[in-house]
Amino acid sequence: MTDPTRIEADYLIETAYPPEQAAEIMAGEQSSGTFRPVPGETPELKERAAARVERLELLGTVEAPSLPGSGQTIDGQVYQQAHVTLSWPLDNLGPSLPNLIATIAGNLFELKPFSGLRLLDVRLPSAFAAAYPGPKFGMDGTRRLAGVEGRPLIGTIIKPSVGLSAEATGALAAELCEGGIDFIKDDELQADGPACPFDDRVHAVMAAVNAAADRTGKKTMVAFNLTGEIDEMRRRHDLVLAEGGTCIMASVTGVGMSGMIALGRHTELPIHAHRCGWGALTRSPVLGWAYPAWSKLWRLAGADHMHVNGIDNKFTEDNDSVIASARSLSDPMFEANPMRAVPVFSSGQTVHQAPATLAAAGSPDLLVTAGGGVVAHPDGVAAGVMAMREAYDAALSGIEVQDYAKDHPALAAALEAY
Amino acid sequence: MTDPTRIEADYLIETAYPPEQAAEIMAGEQSSGTFRPVPGETPELKERAAARVERLELLGTVEAPSLPGSGQTIDGQVYQQAHVTLSWPLDNLGPSLPNLIATIAGNLFELKPFSGLRLLDVRLPSAFAAAYPGPKFGMDGTRRLAGVEGRPLIGTIIKPSVGLSAEATGALAAELCEGGIDFIKDDELQADGPACPFDDRVHAVMAAVNAAADRTGKKTMVAFNLTGEIDEMRRRHDLVLAEGGTCIMASVTGVGMSGMIALGRHTELPIHAHRCGWGALTRSPVLGWAYPAWSKLWRLAGADHMHVNGIDNKFTEDNDSVIASARSLSDPMFEANPMRAVPVFSSGQTVHQAPATLAAAGSPDLLVTAGGGVVAHPDGVAAGVMAMREAYDAALSGIEVQDYAKDHPALAAALEAY
Repeated sequence: MTDPTRIEADYLIETAYPPEQAAEIMAGEQSSGTFRPVPGETPELKERAAARVERLELLGTVEAPSLPGSGQTIDGQVYQQAHVTLSWPLDNLGPSLPNLIATIAGNLFELKPFSGLRLLDVRLPSAFAAAYPGPKFGMDGTRRLAGVEGRPLIGTIIKPSVGLSAEATGALAAELCEGGIDFIKDDELQADGPACPFDDRVHAVMAAVNAAADRTGKKTMVAFNLTGEIDEMRRRHDLVLAEGGTCIMASVTGVGMSGMIALGRHTELPIHAHRCGWGALTRSPVLGWAYPAWSKLWRLAGADHMHVNGIDNKFTEDNDSVIASARSLSDPMFEANPMRAVPVFSSGQTVHQAPATLAAAGSPDLLVTAGGGVVAHPDGVAAGVMAMREAYDAALSGIEVQDYAKDHPALAAALEAY
Repeated sequence: MTDPTRIEADYLIETAYPPEQAAEIMAGEQSSGTFRPVPGETPELKERAAARVERLELLGTVEAPSLPGSGQTIDGQVYQQAHVTLSWPLDNLGPSLPNLIATIAGNLFELKPFSGLRLLDVRLPSAFAAAYPGPKFGMDGTRRLAGVEGRPLIGTIIKPSVGLSAEATGALAAELCEGGIDFIKDDELQADGPACPFDDRVHAVMAAVNAAADRTGKKTMVAFNLTGEIDEMRRRHDLVLAEGGTCIMASVTGVGMSGMIALGRHTELPIHAHRCGWGALTRSPVLGWAYPAWSKLWRLAGADHMHVNGIDNKFTEDNDSVIASARSLSDPMFEANPMRAVPVFSSGQTVHQAPATLAAAGSPDLLVTAGGGVVAHPDGVAAGVMAMREAYDAALSGIEVQDYAKDHPALAAALEAY
């Protein structure tokens, strides 16, 4: 950041217009300009309020427009791709996350000159660090609450995702705690439906967690999915805290930014931020949001754990993208406060991905959750937990998982089954 | 809706898998299934909790995948497009909008079998109508507050969008009220920045609005952009109400669902819902959300006015899509409560689009906002307002705008200038 009074955002664009002109149209539309000159837009006003094109770097060209509807210039047979950086005066909006979204990711994606437009990254003045809490726990706080040091946290997702009663969920949690699991999360489809009410589930699961903790000294961290309205989320948070719980979970695309800010300000527990719905914003390579820009906004609002998909996942995202996402959560957001979040690897995870996942994160500071990869172990849930622990122990010690399995039967059975 | 206990959603899919299999994978992933069978997923549990494929209608095929990353089957040279309807038991989630998003638009868009997946529409059990307020004002309440009957509301956007001080905004509002404008809105980029604080702007603008109303008996409706955190939005709403204001505005993608629900429950004024950022969710024709599905969720949360872009707009959206969006806001959501919202036409609007806009809405129950199309009129703001009024008066009377302009000089000047 060259200027601490300005917000900067990086974009990938694709356009048949002269790229400089296209970039100026973006800047105008997102600040003081409109489709024709208006009387009040004086040079002084523009100097004060206009967005600026800070950088423009040409990339390659494509022969056909990647997205429909773009206007063409006379030489419209070539579509130029480029990286563009725009900046805005902080004074236009102040350090406000909901308004930042309108500014950097508002009426841009459908602008006529563009057959592609994707927000890649964002850099914010320190006023934002003063205005928002950021992750209150991060990796250190999570490790402290989960009692896990020096290795990744091994987690699972309650499966079946939906359909279990509160009591059945509690019984499964008891088995998982017995097996020594570090972390359990609700599925994002399970929040407070009549078939498994939130309060009942918290009572049943925390009874199991607390009983196991009393016996073993290890308290499993459970991320209870409290996704809902603001007042509901605050009340549910307070219940989890009162029952001795150590984590809450919310689906950020369901809750949205103002709701997440309210939760971030209220919480006394780590927030496990689920990204379901994220695919709609990112799957087209020339549209929407790249993960670093998107995740920074949720980090600022208070997300401690953020989903990054998994190595060899069951979705369409490739491993390079997963690795880049995971690494980006360690990019320091502000000099005085990096606001790092914990990468959560999930989706089709089994013992097989342990070495690659550890390498992807670049450190043991990660959380991995395996659903079927734990509860579908042929020797049962406890063996599923043990196998995952053993796979990561092996990877952490630099031992081939296959070798380690020779005297670790749970791991051996998992390697064969999955 | 055949079954009042189930939620239904329609999708466009594109897949190289057998379409029935692909649809079953969607249903499984979004309910009780995961990537491998798990012990607890009994037939009874599936009967109780699983999503169902209700309908599958094959469309055409494409030769190349529209989006990258999809898995292929052995006959993966053809990508079949289809319409699919899924349904879920309401008991899985209850009537909760944030959790509905996770269910119908969660971890779907990146599923391996799909080279395209787009949510088209949604139908909800009446439990949702009981749980949420819907639009508290709609067209009737808006007409009552604005004092406009039998014709569209003619509006404008404060331009330049940003850069004017609160005082300068008040002065522009005074000119616009003097010109007889029905409606004024803040730009979505203008909320509560240090350069134009919300409270100062409300004081300055409402002084102008109230003074004009005292003189003429007509109170212009002003949609003040209160986008922000929940408590900020509630407080700002209360200020607008106290000053005699009649409308508030929020950017729904910036605020998000839980925030909009809180605002919808709190408000005593119509909510003008801005859709900036919507392009990221919709511009790829095979990804994200279609407008009917998306707008229904905001209507339920309380949006009274919803942006639908404009005829011959400055964006990439074609007129057919704009018309379909506008019409969809009148689709009744529930038998006992249709929850209709007012279509707001904007973006590059001038006197030229009046007849087509009226035809698009299918009735005069609409709000049109022109920014440059009003304030850049060659004879000034008041003439800009008058020209827009005249254009819609002509269209409403079935008179050619060009003919009407013969004895309406403001309209004539606008036809020439724009």
